[in-house]
Amino acid sequence: MSKPVFGRIAIIGFGLIGSSLARAVKAHGLARTIVACDDSADARATILRLALADEVTDDPAAAVRDADLVVIAAPLGAYAGIATRMAPALKPGAIVSDVGSVKGPVVRDLPDLLPANVHLVPGHPIAGTENSGPASGFETLFEGRWFIMTPPPGTDEEAVRKVGDLWRGCGSLIEIMDAPHHDKVLAITSHLPHLIAYTIVGTADDLAEDAQSEVIKFSASGFRDFTRIAASDPTMWRDVFLNNREAVLEMLQRFTEDLTALQRAIRISDGGALFDLFTRTREIRRRIIDAHQA
Amino acid sequence: MSKPVFGRIAIIGFGLIGSSLARAVKAHGLARTIVACDDSADARATILRLALADEVTDDPAAAVRDADLVVIAAPLGAYAGIATRMAPALKPGAIVSDVGSVKGPVVRDLPDLLPANVHLVPGHPIAGTENSGPASGFETLFEGRWFIMTPPPGTDEEAVRKVGDLWRGCGSLIEIMDAPHHDKVLAITSHLPHLIAYTIVGTADDLAEDAQSEVIKFSASGFRDFTRIAASDPTMWRDVFLNNREAVLEMLQRFTEDLTALQRAIRISDGGALFDLFTRTREIRRRIIDAHQA
Repeated sequence: MSKPVFGRIAIIGFGLIGSSLARAVKAHGLARTIVACDDSADARATILRLALADEVTDDPAAAVRDADLVVIAAPLGAYAGIATRMAPALKPGAIVSDVGSVKGPVVRDLPDLLPANVHLVPGHPIAGTENSGPASGFETLFEGRWFIMTPPPGTDEEAVRKVGDLWRGCGSLIEIMDAPHHDKVLAITSHLPHLIAYTIVGTADDLAEDAQSEVIKFSASGFRDFTRIAASDPTMWRDVFLNNREAVLEMLQRFTEDLTALQRAIRISDGGALFDLFTRTREIRRRIIDAHQA
Repeated sequence: MSKPVFGRIAIIGFGLIGSSLARAVKAHGLARTIVACDDSADARATILRLALADEVTDDPAAAVRDADLVVIAAPLGAYAGIATRMAPALKPGAIVSDVGSVKGPVVRDLPDLLPANVHLVPGHPIAGTENSGPASGFETLFEGRWFIMTPPPGTDEEAVRKVGDLWRGCGSLIEIMDAPHHDKVLAITSHLPHLIAYTIVGTADDLAEDAQSEVIKFSASGFRDFTRIAASDPTMWRDVFLNNREAVLEMLQRFTEDLTALQRAIRISDGGALFDLFTRTREIRRRIIDAHQA
């Protein structure tokens, strides 16, 4: 057990990420009290059944009262409503953080909705699975994975340090960058891969019913890896694309150009171009394995 | 141990698939003698070191002498050379099979290169990993996975049955279809996913060096799943695209249309269209899990 970093933590939105954070915080003794807030009655029942938090509520204002740290772990589209409801109840000096996959809109919009006497330290754990809901979380989700923080210029250094300590305590590695840079990096590492996976699974879903059955039957040949990614939470991912539009569209444009070039190589039977690309891409995999992120 | 299905099996090309087949055949006692043939000296040294076959050679003619079954497990581009070299040495009544990912060209071109007194039973195991070479194979690779056979009309039924028995003995489920149908199904389940994975990893590889390092560092957010697929054997995959051009280009066209529609939905912030697609794709994942192919 570590020394607690916080007395009372409120986690607003208690799905895969929120519940995994609660599990890790509890396992490592990083907070004295964990308050869970979720607007789904099913989720709240699961939280109680699995004893994932010390207190459970559906009201953000009740959840954040006396909390030293509030972590918003809901889809991006729900942030404004949550912030508006919890703002009057926030303790002066409290830290507000989050785990959203896009950081530009958080840094831009959230300060106006929060009182001036709290510290905003946005963050994003680079970890997850295709499963959703409080039952799908697990304690080791963040171990060895990066937690990116994007504190706006002038953020209280002590607040940044404490949020970092919490995630370090959960096993994460910490990186700090500005929000626009985060959103560009994630557009290529996360948002574009999800967009493409959703597309190809959708393409297969449009086939006639008998062809579809065969796609499912023979999916072990590559397709199934895309279906795993394309099974991720629809609300969360809708909000990601709506909130990181420019960066995603720019990366998509580059991808489309490259795909067109490859299409042409196939059409003219340019085996050399295919072989060269397929050899280059193998090297990237080796570097990911070397970086222990495989 | 099962009763041997064949006396002597020759496996030409001894990489991931060839060596896994040898391991499974040996483990289940499906043949009395396994002959390995590979043109790489490194591969032959590995085969000897790991004792993966009873005999090892670099000469297809020597390998197939007295063999009851010959399995070509080399890249498609090597088939014509292998067939030409081994044809004079094939035993009358021998069965020639393969494991290639495209079946049209095999059914079309191979009969002209083989003597009339052998039986051609082309096949394709729907299984694999991103690793290559004889050391990467393993005995259970085919368990619970499909083996598709595409015997041309009029193929000896006993030969088809025996090839099926061999793969059933390795744990596979058997499906029979015609070659053009196989190539269409695999274009969407396997070839297009690989093409897209190769493309996006190539797109990332074209970024500036510092951006590339970040892509590797934060790859756990989706990208790394594509790099696994894009680490597959370059020669094998070059040959797949050169040999299944029409079906791949057709599926690629559908994919591109769908991607363009999704791009537009993001551009005009059509959250409903995004949510609907992301919900549909989740259902396909559920069906794959239900079919025990996840």
